[in-house]
Amino acid sequence: MAPPQVSPEVFLQMGREILAQQAFSVLLGTELNALSPGKVELQLVLKDEHKQQHGFAHGGIVSYLADNALTYAGGTAMQVPVVTSEFKINYVRPAVGDKLIVRAQAEHVGKAQSVARCQVFAVSGGVEKLCALGQGTIVKLGESPAS
Amino acid sequence: MAPPQVSPEVFLQMGREILAQQAFSVLLGTELNALSPGKVELQLVLKDEHKQQHGFAHGGIVSYLADNALTYAGGTAMQVPVVTSEFKINYVRPAVGDKLIVRAQAEHVGKAQSVARCQVFAVSGGVEKLCALGQGTIVKLGESPAS
Amino acid sequence: MAPPQVSPEVFLQMGREILAQQAFSVLLGTELNALSPGKVELQLVLKDEHKQQHGFAHGGIVSYLADNALTYAGGTAMQVPVVTSEFKINYVRPAVGDKLIVRAQAEHVGKAQSVARCQVFAVSGGVEKLCALGQGTIVKLGESPAS
Amino acid sequence: MAPPQVSPEVFLQMGREILAQQAFSVLLGTELNALSPGKVELQLVLKDEHKQQHGFAHGGIVSYLADNALTYAGGTAMQVPVVTSEFKINYVRPAVGDKLIVRAQAEHVGKAQSVARCQVFAVSGGVEKLCALGQGTIVKLGESPAS
Repeated sequence: MAPPQVSPEVFLQMGREILAQQAFSVLLGTELNALSPGKVELQLVLKDEHKQQHGFAHGGIVSYLADNALTYAGGTAMQVPVVTSEFKINYVRPAVGDKLIVRAQAEHVGKAQSVARCQVFAVSGGVEKLCALGQGTIVKLGESPAS
Repeated sequence: MAPPQVSPEVFLQMGREILAQQAFSVLLGTELNALSPGKVELQLVLKDEHKQQHGFAHGGIVSYLADNALTYAGGTAMQVPVVTSEFKINYVRPAVGDKLIVRAQAEHVGKAQSVARCQVFAVSGGVEKLCALGQGTIVKLGESPAS
Repeated sequence: MAPPQVSPEVFLQMGREILAQQAFSVLLGTELNALSPGKVELQLVLKDEHKQQHGFAHGGIVSYLADNALTYAGGTAMQVPVVTSEFKINYVRPAVGDKLIVRAQAEHVGKAQSVARCQVFAVSGGVEKLCALGQGTIVKLGESPAS
Repeated sequence: MAPPQVSPEVFLQMGREILAQQAFSVLLGTELNALSPGKVELQLVLKDEHKQQHGFAHGGIVSYLADNALTYAGGTAMQVPVVTSEFKINYVRPAVGDKLIVRAQAEHVGKAQSVARCQVFAVSGGVEKLCALGQGTIVKLGESPAS
């Protein structure tokens, strides 16, 4: 990804260009709110098409946000192309609200991999409620099982 | 979900009706291939809109399939309304191909929760390749943190 | 566990009595440094008998500390008898040093379960280095699969 | 680990020598019942010193067995020195009985890492009951964060 000397604005812009290349993120309407090395915030305005049979956002939407945020956090911390090789997620509250926000940060950064954590919040009328927590491993693309 | 005396055909049909109520699954185009108590197969024909910037299906698509399959496996094993309370997923190969198939089965079934596992395969020209493995907890809706 | 009106000293003492009832923790030599509702610190002075073939503390020692700390954090947050129903752990550095310290905190507390996170540090000459991160679910004993 | 042309007996013997070098496994009394490339069975005769305050084997004993079995399964599949970089475990029943048995197998084997799964059983009077399921990543020692 970006070399460290890039300005915060350019760094965020580069992150948004990557998001724009993810057809799936474009389909869902994901937005990149903030990005710095090892740290990211993504958001998704909830629409009916994101829901499951109980009227909540589908768990798959929440896990997608977690996966994507972990990848951004690990990738910008390591400054190389990466993929998420594994993660776990705990859902703690139904994802109900106007939008979802996920914040992730790299907790450990190595040469070949990093470990990141994230929190997903459901936002209703400006009030954030924690709805999921994730933790996963992000690996250099060339050394990944998925590369 | 369905009482045990229902015929296999009706059981599958009931499962498809639930899938049809998941707006997100309809958006993605997920199909329910097979369903019996504690066991499920879902598939998703891959389209460009499912991809990320490297040209693979987005990890979020794969984790959505894992989440959904685990919920079906646990829910049909327990025969009550459920949600997936947590899961972990390991990606082992890029999700590239014509379609993705996920198979899940309940490995332990209790009164209030069950533990299920799944395998996601990328299918190209009829050949299946393992691309992810998941394991998670499915809980009764009324006792769930997300209910 | 303890009712909320108990003094911090008594609360810690009650936690130490529980630890003293864990024969396995006594065998290993685990100590309870600090305990308050939803928050715990355990430590283990490393001995040769804790090691594996590469000379590090065995991963099983680290995962035991994570498991135990998650249970304390969740149990003191919920103020009921609990067990850890599941957790995941990422090892990020060999557990080498004089002692290991684990700190856990409840991140979400519900009626029937809570989700907690922990960090395990290897301490050498007073310097702490992060060696593992965990996240898991703690459930009320009566409603648990393991009760 | 062992080159592929080694006889099954020698392979098992080499596995037992590694176990004998794990001081922690010696402390606990772990035995290696069976070992072949990508597949392992370990057992532990339960003693009072393995228990927690409810009279079950401590979750840390169960997670130690899972961790160790996953490492054996991944290491013998890859035929290189390895460590477990992460795993998750679901406890589904109290670990009560005469002994615990864990069986693990590699589910995917790559050059730099493999993904393995395990099942832990509590054995009473010859009857096995599933008490935990695990899944994790095993990585080549040289490329590991923990090496």
